Order: sequence, then C-alpha cells, then structure tokens
Amino acid sequence: MPSAPLSSLAASFQALKTDLYQKDFLLTWEHSTEQLEAVLTLAEIFKQLHRAGTSFRAFDAGLAISIFRDNSTRTRFSFASAASALGFTLSELDEQKSQVAHGETVRETANMISFLAEVIGIRDDMYLGAGNAYMREVGEALSDGAARGVRHRRPSLINLQCDVDHPTQTLADLAWLREHFGGLEQLRGKKIAMTWAYSPSYGKPLSVPQGVIGLMTRFGMEVRLAHPEGYGLIPEVMELAGRNAGAAGGRFQVMGSMEEAFEGADIVYPKSWAPFHVMQRRTELLKNGDREGLKELEKVCLANNARYRNWECDRRKMDLTAGKAALYMHCLPADITGVSCEAGEVSAEVFEQARIPTYHEASYKPFVISALMFLTRVKDPAARLGEILARRKPLG
Amino acid sequence: MPSAPLSSLAASFQALKTDLYQKDFLLTWEHSTEQLEAVLTLAEIFKQLHRAGTSFRAFDAGLAISIFRDNSTRTRFSFASAASALGFTLSELDEQKSQVAHGETVRETANMISFLAEVIGIRDDMYLGAGNAYMREVGEALSDGAARGVRHRRPSLINLQCDVDHPTQTLADLAWLREHFGGLEQLRGKKIAMTWAYSPSYGKPLSVPQGVIGLMTRFGMEVRLAHPEGYGLIPEVMELAGRNAGAAGGRFQVMGSMEEAFEGADIVYPKSWAPFHVMQRRTELLKNGDREGLKELEKVCLANNARYRNWECDRRKMDLTAGKAALYMHCLPADITGVSCEAGEVSAEVFEQARIPTYHEASYKPFVISALMFLTRVKDPAARLGEILARRKPLG
Amino acid sequence: MPSAPLSSLAASFQALKTDLYQKDFLLTWEHSTEQLEAVLTLAEIFKQLHRAGTSFRAFDAGLAISIFRDNSTRTRFSFASAASALGFTLSELDEQKSQVAHGETVRETANMISFLAEVIGIRDDMYLGAGNAYMREVGEALSDGAARGVRHRRPSLINLQCDVDHPTQTLADLAWLREHFGGLEQLRGKKIAMTWAYSPSYGKPLSVPQGVIGLMTRFGMEVRLAHPEGYGLIPEVMELAGRNAGAAGGRFQVMGSMEEAFEGADIVYPKSWAPFHVMQRRTELLKNGDREGLKELEKVCLANNARYRNWECDRRKMDLTAGKAALYMHCLPADITGVSCEAGEVSAEVFEQARIPTYHEASYKPFVISALMFLTRVKDPAARLGEILARRKPLG
Repeated sequence: MPSAPLSSLAASFQALKTDLYQKDFLLTWEHSTEQLEAVLTLAEIFKQLHRAGTSFRAFDAGLAISIFRDNSTRTRFSFASAASALGFTLSELDEQKSQVAHGETVRETANMISFLAEVIGIRDDMYLGAGNAYMREVGEALSDGAARGVRHRRPSLINLQCDVDHPTQTLADLAWLREHFGGLEQLRGKKIAMTWAYSPSYGKPLSVPQGVIGLMTRFGMEVRLAHPEGYGLIPEVMELAGRNAGAAGGRFQVMGSMEEAFEGADIVYPKSWAPFHVMQRRTELLKNGDREGLKELEKVCLANNARYRNWECDRRKMDLTAGKAALYMHCLPADITGVSCEAGEVSAEVFEQARIPTYHEASYKPFVISALMFLTRVKDPAARLGEILARRKPLG
Repeated sequence: MPSAPLSSLAASFQALKTDLYQKDFLLTWEHSTEQLEAVLTLAEIFKQLHRAGTSFRAFDAGLAISIFRDNSTRTRFSFASAASALGFTLSELDEQKSQVAHGETVRETANMISFLAEVIGIRDDMYLGAGNAYMREVGEALSDGAARGVRHRRPSLINLQCDVDHPTQTLADLAWLREHFGGLEQLRGKKIAMTWAYSPSYGKPLSVPQGVIGLMTRFGMEVRLAHPEGYGLIPEVMELAGRNAGAAGGRFQVMGSMEEAFEGADIVYPKSWAPFHVMQRRTELLKNGDREGLKELEKVCLANNARYRNWECDRRKMDLTAGKAALYMHCLPADITGVSCEAGEVSAEVFEQARIPTYHEASYKPFVISALMFLTRVKDPAARLGEILARRKPLG
Repeated sequence: MPSAPLSSLAASFQALKTDLYQKDFLLTWEHSTEQLEAVLTLAEIFKQLHRAGTSFRAFDAGLAISIFRDNSTRTRFSFASAASALGFTLSELDEQKSQVAHGETVRETANMISFLAEVIGIRDDMYLGAGNAYMREVGEALSDGAARGVRHRRPSLINLQCDVDHPTQTLADLAWLREHFGGLEQLRGKKIAMTWAYSPSYGKPLSVPQGVIGLMTRFGMEVRLAHPEGYGLIPEVMELAGRNAGAAGGRFQVMGSMEEAFEGADIVYPKSWAPFHVMQRRTELLKNGDREGLKELEKVCLANNARYRNWECDRRKMDLTAGKAALYMHCLPADITGVSCEAGEVSAEVFEQARIPTYHEASYKPFVISALMFLTRVKDPAARLGEILARRKPLG
C-alpha cells in the first residue's frame, strides 16, 4: 500500500509530544509508544524527503562518533548516512589506534573524545551482560562530565546493537511492517513468528530476537517465539514480552517448533542465535582469553546446532503460513542454503522470493537513525521539521 | 601557455550537451568525445575556482563511498578532495571491518551500504578479468535495487582503477596535456610514446598503458606503444586503440624499443607493467591462494624483467625526442634509479627535471573526479554551474 | 573564577594584531606572545560560542588531513572536532594503506595528498631528532609546490606532537591556567613544578615537559623542572627556557627531587618521560629495526626507572604545595597507582581529587586547534570573527 502523503505524516508528527531531547536511546522498552511512533513517523518523513531529493540537514557542525566493537556493514553505513544527512562529521573510535587499551578508563575516554560530539553510536554485542552495561557506563561518564561543567553539550548515545537489544534494527523492522501493512493500527492481531533457525556458525547475538519480542508485543501483535530446547533468551526480556503483550491486548507465546510458529503466521522472522547459557560461557572464556576453551565450546555448539538442521525456513514451512505467503523478514545477511553455506537459515528459493522485501526492510535503518539523532539533538523537533519542510532545500 | 579565462571556459562548457547524469563512469571509451571534453572543461573551471578561493560545493549531504581493494594514496586523496569540495561525506568500505567476507553477495552489500550514497568510487586492479567485472556487478545490483523501488537515488560508480582502465588518471593526464599544449586541438599530430620501463617489482597493473592508448588515440595523436616481447596488453584494448586512431585521423603503432618510440616524440610516458599472460597466471594463483606459486612466479618474472634493465628513461634516450625536450609523464610514484630503487623506470636526472610537471599532471585528478561527480549527479550541470559562478561563495 | 563575557573577549581579540595567516604552527616559541594570546583568546571565544550552541563554522569545503605516526585518542578527536566545527572534511593518511612505503619521498607525498587541503596535522613523536624535522620537510615540500605553481593554496601544518614540542597540549594547558587563575597576567610569579614521575613504561616522549618549560617561562611564571639524574631534556630547550624566563621576568630552575619542586608550588605537573640519551639510543635501534636491542634497552630502562618509584605524586607531596592545594595538571592518560598500574605517576587519591580539573584542562584542546586552524587559514580573522558573532547561527 502507498505511504501516507508527506503533509499528513507531518501533521501526525506534529501532533505527537516528543520527549527524547538530550536523552540516550538504548532499549526500545525504555521509551513510550508515543516516542516510538514519533521515531517511525519522522523516519518515514525523512525517507520521503530523500526520495524527493530534499535535504533534511539540521546541523552546521558536530561529531557523530561511532564505536564498533564488532563487525558491521549495514549499521555502520546507516549511521554514516544519518550523520551525513543531518550535517554531522563522522568520526570512528578505533580502539586499536587509540591509547584506550593502555589502562584508560571508560569514564575518561568517553569524556575525552566527545567535547564537540552530538551523538555517539555504540555496537557492543560480544559479551553477554556487558554490552548494554558498557553503554550505560559511557552515558554516566558523560552525564558526570556535564554535571561538573566539563562539557556544555552532552552527546546522546544510540545503541547500535548490544547483548540485550538492537533498537535501530527492530525499529527499521517495525517501520517496514507499518508501511507494508498500511499503518501501526493494522498490525493489531497480526501473527509474527520470531523463530530460531539453523546456522553453521555459533555465537550469534540474542539482540535481534529479544528486540523483536520486546517491541512487537507492544502493538497488539500475536508474537510467537520458537526455538529448540536450550536456545532460550534472557529471562527478563521474556517476562517483559509477556507483560507488554498483556498491556497491549496481544499475545506472547513460546513454541517448540518452527512449524508450529509458522502455522497461520502473517510474518516470519527465522534467524539463528546462540543459546543464552552458551553466550554466558563464551563471555567468561572471552574475558579470560581462553582460546582452547573457546575452540572446545565452538565444537560442542556446532555439534549441538547440527541436531537442528531441519530448522530451515523452506517452501514447505512457508506453505503453513497465512495464505502460504507470510512476509519473510531478516536483519541480513542471512545464511542461505546452497548460497552462502551448505545448509542455513533459509532455502535459496524462499530467500530469493523475499530478497527485495528484506532490502525494503533494511532501507529504513538510515532513516530510523536519522530520526533518533534528530529527536535526541533538536530541542523543538516539530518546529524544526516545519522549517525543513518549508525551506525545501534540494540535496544537490 | 596560460589557461583560458573562466568566462570563456564556462561558455565552452555551457555549449556542450552533457549526458552523464545518473550514469556510471567505468571506461573512457564508453563515453563520447563531447562528454570527455565536458569533463576536462569542468575540471579546469573547478581548478580555477579553487585557485580563486571560490567554493564549488553543490551538495548539502550524501555519502561518497570509496572501496579500495588495493593500496592508494593519490587517488584516495583525490577522491576525498572531490567529495569534500562538492559537499559529500566521505565513507570508506573497509572489507575487513564489515561482514562482507562472511559469504555476503556483492548484490546485497552494494544495496545495503548505499541507501543515501550519491557516488561510489572503486579501485579493483589486482585480478585480470575481475576488476571491471566487479564494478559492473555492483552497478547492476544498484540498478536492480532502483528498479525494484528499494532505493530512490541510485548512486553513480566511478572507476578509480581496474584491470582494464584508469580513467581518472588518464583524464588528468589529458587535462594536463591540454593545458600544457594550449588546447585539445593542439594535440592533433603530437607524438606520444607510451612505453614499458624496467622496474624491480612485478605485477603492476596494465590499466595505465591501456587507458592511455585507449584515450589519446581519440584526439588525433600519434600514439606509440613500445614494450619488450611478451609484455603485450589486453588484445581487445589494442584493437580499440587502432580503431580509435583510424577514426580520429591519428596513428597507433606498436614498437619494440624505447629508443624507437622516443624518436621525435613530443611526449613520453615510460612506465612499468606486468606482461598480460603473467597477470592472467597471477590472477589464477591469487584466486587459489597459492603462495608458493606466487613466489615462484615473482622469481621468474623479476628474472625476466631484469633482462630489460636498459628500458630506463635516461638523458640519452630523452635526447632522441623532439627538441631533446619531450614532456615526461608518469602517474607516480615512479621507480627512480638511485632514489627509490637501485635501477628503475627513470634516471634521477631526468625525473628531477620532470618532477614539477608530473605534479601539475597529478594536480588535475581531484578536479577531474569533482567534474565526474558533478556531471553524474547534477541534473542540469550547465544551469547549476551558472549558479555557482554567480554566487561566488568564498571557500572560507 | 568566571570567564570574561564574550563581548569583552571579542574586543580583546580584535585589538590583537595576528600574523599567523598561511603559516605553520610547529613550536610555540617560534611565535610571539601576542600570537599566543590571540590563540588563547580565540579558543576561549570558540568555547563560549559552543556553550551557547552557536556555530563558528568558517569553511564551505576543504580537507583537514591528519597523519598520526603514533597512537592518539585525545588529540585525534580534538583535531576531528576542530575540523568539524570549522567545516573541513576529515581525512586521515594511513601510511599502511597508502603507497608511501614503496619508496615514495616525503616531498612527493606531501604534495600529492594536499591539492585541496587547508590544514595538515601531524603527530610524529617516536624518533628523537626526526619528528619535528619531518614536519619541516613536509612544510618545505608544500612551499616548493606552491612556489612552482603546482598548488594554489598551501595548507598549514599543525604540530600534533613531535619529539620537541606538543604545542596544542601546552596551549590547552595554558588556556586552562588562564581560566583557572583569572587571566594571563595572574600567572606572573606563580610557581609551576614540571616534574618527572615514575611509570612502569619507558620511551614516553619528552615533548610535554619541553613544551611546558618552553611556554610557561614566557609568562613570568617560576618554572621548576625536576627529574632524577640522567632524565634530562634536550639541552637547547633547557637553554631556551632559561632565556625565556630571563626575558619575561620569571625564573627557570632545575631541581633534583619532586619534593623540592613541589615546595610552595601553585601548580604541579608530574609526568613520566624517557631520558634524553635513552630516546637517542632508541631512535637508533628503531631505525635499524633492532628488536633484540630494543628489548634489551627496555629491560635496562625499566630497571632504571624502578629506582625512582618514589617519584609518585601522592598526598604527602601535595601537602608540600601552596596551601596544600596546588593545581594538579596532566596531559592524560595518567598512570595511576592501583588503578591503571601497580605503581605509577600519581596516587589514586590525588588523581581522583584532580580528575575533573584535568578534564577541564583537556577540554581546551579542540578549541585551541580550532583557533590555530582559523588563524592560519582566514585572511582577516578579526573581521571574520565579527561576522560569526553577528550572524549567531545555531549549531543545529
């Protein structure tokens, strides 16, 4: 269905009361539904402005710093794109090239790099119990620096994936669902199957499935989580998903097979992740630098994974979904059977049919990050957006 | 001779009919002579604006992504300079830091990184038969993404050196010849000797000699290609050079010695490259990761190179050229005998005399890339240039 | 004490006669006190503008290139921040990714990367006798290129730390002293103890203590340098400090113990560095790639350092200072006993009390570098600042 026209989106946005100014954005569930709606609506507005070749640049200067403690392509370029669109200078903290390793504390580094920073985006998803905690440590250091007058402007943190949540991904997912189904209200009652899927690798973060069940349960959807025994998520997030579903009038169910979760589903999100207890063990081993232990763990885990090779999203399973045509979602890159690996999360046939929709899904991330930057850094977003719409400055 | 004044250059530019908007620039011979003239004229205009401290910034935001699959200094900074001058945010795809290696397809990566990109510059010159093909694969993926509505703006590709051509280098070379000789029409009948030269390294790309014979033959020059037996170029480019010369009323000759090629030459371009068949063999070995094979090949090649140590551009050979004073050209860095190596492409004496002219030659590259970015991304370049000239905005 | 209001700072700045346009900034003592005052005043103005959310962007385009031949965090981000604030595009020369290693001369590289550059910042502090010399070699190459018409705009060099001086650090130090004590004239007669301190590492550059004694002696301060026997600085800088003190009506004394230097001091700056002769020996070994020699030297040096573990800035020594409350300074990161190492330059107690003041000290560096960029690149800084103050453009 076609997106709403720009004027109607702008009116919707201006009717919302935003409160993200000068805040961090670390977990979707720390922010009200109204704030999430503001992010989605603004992201859609920015997307339409970009389509029309109109600039939504809002800053004259300032650093957008990224700290990637794990590899990234999509999120890295989405962050860079958002920084460029808003007028920030991109600056990456490469911990190898800095003196950070030499015993410098997070508290100090956070303050030292960011005197003229507006936003800091962090990916830290390797260590269970540590990634989100690291972001909060940085945030506290920045607040401390601000409180003590060291800095005049405290930059906002944006979580670019941690051990708990991957908010820029799941908000892009939600933005795509909103467009695809024609509005957030259309999502009410929709069945979404967030399921584990087989992959010939181990140690994939839990942040996407956790982020999805933590977010989608807030919009009245029927959220089904399915995984083999032993592949559970962080218990607190499971509880949160249940509470969310209750409050929003939806459902949150845990199931034991991909087939069951796919039955009548409107949306499927089959994706591999590591068992919670494996991530805990892995975190310990990584912290101790225990290479032998890591190799042994990998071997055991791959062997364990291999017992669930049938957790592949194939045509037969897709045929169980609503109208045999559920919307397939993935944060990409997917492990595609016979393409990127011998056996993986999804069959080549299913993926190829769903490929372009997954690109649409991904296309929202730069605009979601742009919206988060705008809302956390601009004092009166509604007024400022009004100016941007009025000036109609071409991109080039 | 002094350059034409800005107003006359602007008039020349506005008289040309450009058609590069939203196109890729991968090989000079895929574009008409009129388009090349537009690039050269605009590059000269930008150079004069920069000299006068006038900004030619044309964009408010957008990424200029570079993908360097081989080392680069000059081209890297030329690309960065052009991006800065036009208002783009520089963003480099570092394949080591991304998830590209993990089985992700070119098709997917190309789309994922570039939702807000305006240009993508690629250097991929290591594999014969692969570099240019890779660029086209990226281009097709972007076109596919655009056709399917995944993206609203399809970025333009700029070839920053491949296995076939090095268009930003050869256009900078041509811009310099144009300035040096006082106009493109003055190049008619000029003798240019593109010759192999000895170097104590092997595996240098063929793109510069190929690019030079493919480009200079289009302007009525007498192009002489000289190399030792076995150091031939890609046959298709040789044929193209012959056809070009026929069509433009010039000549294309292949010779067997530097001396013969230098005889009466107005311009000399002595530069090492690897034999075509060696590059083919090397490509195979690189693809197979055959280290022993590569070492063995290097040994054989260096021994073979060593038979042609007398292919050095020295004073004695320069004395054979027109007025003993041909214009010496090089894409830099040159292998200079007694300076950067024991024995190399050029004697220290000849290079030192020619050094500053080679810097002039190099100085065009940022402006050539600026012109390519402008022409491929601005819908009505003549009108837009008019605005830039009228506003006379200072750089700082 | 509160800073002077913006209008009074602007008046002070406009009363100064600046002469840094198109110059390099390599050593503080190559520039008059009036120029240093201009830098400090402008840095303070920029800091106040930033606090008020006002942009001081002055450029539409142009590269700010950084060359870091040693690790850096603070200075790297300060340079990036200044580039962003002024409107430059950040571009880092990574010597590993370039062709620089392949025998290319400094003369050539300097010209090749900087056709559209406005500033080049260099850190080269590893080799005694080489870092500052390298900067001058780059500078001469750029001047040569400009003189010969290769470039229209010669970028300015900014020393981001060399073997002799660390001017952006010491000017930030001085800016902080100026704010802390309420004006440069208030520094007259103040006692500053620049002392060696123990660290469990060796090979730390001499540039900070040298920069401090070379700069602070110019403002009528009583500068005390203290270090164990054998840890002397470059003799020429020692002589310079003595001459400066004489000319400015202050004092420069060399002492043999931290206690003596701290006695009644208003300011203390305890920091480790390597003995001059060790840096000389290390430079030789590094140049020869003598790994065994370097290991041996490190062993001997650490053993030698260990004899001076009592050179720690602890509470007992702080109690010797004026009012037991000297201002503690450090360029950071400090080696803190029991925090970043077993035994280090400063006790945890003293550092924790001084931590926030050292952050204030550091906060000046981005603004000092901004001021240096502005003064070296803007033809009429007073007029231009007037425009910036008048336009009051918000940052975002």
